[in-house]
Amino acid sequence: FRVLLLPGDGIGPEVVAAARRVADAAAARFGLTLEYEERRIGAAAIREEGAPVSKETLRRAGEADAVLLGAVGDPEFDGGEVRPEAGLLALRRELGTFANLRPVAAIPALSGSSPLRPGVAEGVDLLIVRELTGGAYFGEKEEGEERASDLSVYTRGEVERVARVAFEAARGRRGRVASVDKANVLATSRLWRRVVGEVARDYPDVALEHVLVDAAAMHLVTDPGRFDVILTENLFGDILSDEAAVLPGSMGMLPSASLGEPGSPGIFEPVHGSAPDIAGKGVANPYAAILSAAMMFRHGLGRPEAAEAIERGVEAAVAAGCLTPDLGGSSGTEEAAEAVARRVA
Amino acid sequence: FRVLLLPGDGIGPEVVAAARRVADAAAARFGLTLEYEERRIGAAAIREEGAPVSKETLRRAGEADAVLLGAVGDPEFDGGEVRPEAGLLALRRELGTFANLRPVAAIPALSGSSPLRPGVAEGVDLLIVRELTGGAYFGEKEEGEERASDLSVYTRGEVERVARVAFEAARGRRGRVASVDKANVLATSRLWRRVVGEVARDYPDVALEHVLVDAAAMHLVTDPGRFDVILTENLFGDILSDEAAVLPGSMGMLPSASLGEPGSPGIFEPVHGSAPDIAGKGVANPYAAILSAAMMFRHGLGRPEAAEAIERGVEAAVAAGCLTPDLGGSSGTEEAAEAVARRVA
Ligand SMILES: CC(C)[C@H](C(=O)O)[C@@H](O)C(=O)O
Ligand SMILES: CC(C)[C@H](C(=O)O)[C@@H](O)C(=O)O
Repeated sequence: FRVLLLPGDGIGPEVVAAARRVADAAAARFGLTLEYEERRIGAAAIREEGAPVSKETLRRAGEADAVLLGAVGDPEFDGGEVRPEAGLLALRRELGTFANLRPVAAIPALSGSSPLRPGVAEGVDLLIVRELTGGAYFGEKEEGEERASDLSVYTRGEVERVARVAFEAARGRRGRVASVDKANVLATSRLWRRVVGEVARDYPDVALEHVLVDAAAMHLVTDPGRFDVILTENLFGDILSDEAAVLPGSMGMLPSASLGEPGSPGIFEPVHGSAPDIAGKGVANPYAAILSAAMMFRHGLGRPEAAEAIERGVEAAVAAGCLTPDLGGSSGTEEAAEAVARRVA
Repeated sequence: FRVLLLPGDGIGPEVVAAARRVADAAAARFGLTLEYEERRIGAAAIREEGAPVSKETLRRAGEADAVLLGAVGDPEFDGGEVRPEAGLLALRRELGTFANLRPVAAIPALSGSSPLRPGVAEGVDLLIVRELTGGAYFGEKEEGEERASDLSVYTRGEVERVARVAFEAARGRRGRVASVDKANVLATSRLWRRVVGEVARDYPDVALEHVLVDAAAMHLVTDPGRFDVILTENLFGDILSDEAAVLPGSMGMLPSASLGEPGSPGIFEPVHGSAPDIAGKGVANPYAAILSAAMMFRHGLGRPEAAEAIERGVEAAVAAGCLTPDLGGSSGTEEAAEAVARRVA
């Protein structure tokens, strides 16, 4: 399997190195061969190549079996003309990764660090399926001194394909989809609601509810346990998935997968950012990147057994108290990676 | 003062009657005369008048000194062609109420019902200033079978005037404004960020920070105490203000004011919805509507002393244990209104 590594900025290189260490252990155990290529994205690419992602990197990504990404973003470029984040958006568009999957679940060993009351926090076990290549992110923009505009567009086909991903995922979980929109105000949301309702007819075994985005933002805090799969459009997904990400207490544990059409390479990356304040110190929490590698084996390379071995390895390492500072421990990035790799092997 | 009452749907009529009872007590105490007119909005207006708000009602609203609104929305019209919510949007546009103010603060007597851990919940004391007449709510829409779009537009003037409201409010509070946008993706957000930064120069005594909307959605849950005034555009404000609204534990306590140019009538309404499940039972929590009447005295009629008397009256009634079922008590709507009115008188 060819894996393109895009470590990116801040703590990206450290956590990607950790994920690679664990992926290699899993590959060895299950008799797989991973061939890596490493390239730049984000601020690192702006500095060395003059653009947040080069054409060549996009081309190589398209030829890979999967892309393992670290983090993108650097305060140096805040408010500038060239934004590191543009590299990530270009990569998503190039690979057509229309479905972003973000599982969020309470981790019993870490429940003390949740901002929610104990009774509320424990119920969190949800999957956000966020549309990733449409909406206001990629619509026409106008930007003047006096006036600016963003156009959000959705087509029936765009809604349908991501809805199918959500319904399929619900089948492997608790069989419920909450589709989030703002149908009382937005035209795109009314199309969204109609098409999701039509797709639902093909999944009579899955229960569908429609939830307004403002109500969803409330329910996530008051009663996150009511959600199984949350399906939503790009911008709402950006907001709700970050809101959901803090519920278990540490973002440092959350992986993501961005998937396109079958056969095209997915992007696997931790949900956390580049955390420039702790970059290079060897203390970054690598579990989210490691769990992203697990998602890569499952969704990108079709090797669920390797994914499960990694996930069990992380659980065991955490339960054994191998915790980085953000989790209240004193383990370093490499130590945590080592602890998981040993268990995977 | 001429006050237009728009009770609307569900529990709206009950809580508006309660707010009127208290407003009358405040008027009597401070020697003011309130003249009421009552008209329909929302589902009630669709049923009786064929539209969610009539032209005549919009005209009367424009002639009033303030509009006191209950709630809008009825499941009967969910997904229909004519939506009760359209009445509210038309009213906002007619009156040009571009600034929606939503104060959210922890209520010590009710802290047990917050979904947040004790240490986190207590710090909540923030004011959301939401732009209310621009953005994707009022931009051009296209709605077809195969494709739909929403255009979000902001002009410099629209951003500037609502930013001034936020900076002025911060001066009377803890002197901090967090402006929330998605400047790494949206053109409107980049205009927003630029103009807010320019307005900030006129307020050297107020500290400004720019926060991305996804980060803001996280911080609201993990560390709400870091926020004083949150300034944001229409759609982000819809989502974040509902997320913030559940932090203190009960939405039944939260008022709002929607203000336009000086001299034009504002809209004062509780943040909660029409709650059709408990409508007509006499158990709806009237405090949010009563506190909205207080905001009406302060921001709409220029009588802060009446506002304060009402606010102290609500605090005292709550502290005395006069709690509706949603707050864990067994008081009815009228009883709670009576308890406040007595204290105000
Ligand atoms: C970096 C940024 C452009 C990106 C987004 O908004 O999609 C990030 O917030 C995410 O959620 O992956
Ligand atoms: C009823 C609806 C149109 C409205 C909005 O989205 O503005 C409501 O959610 C609000 O926040 O006042």
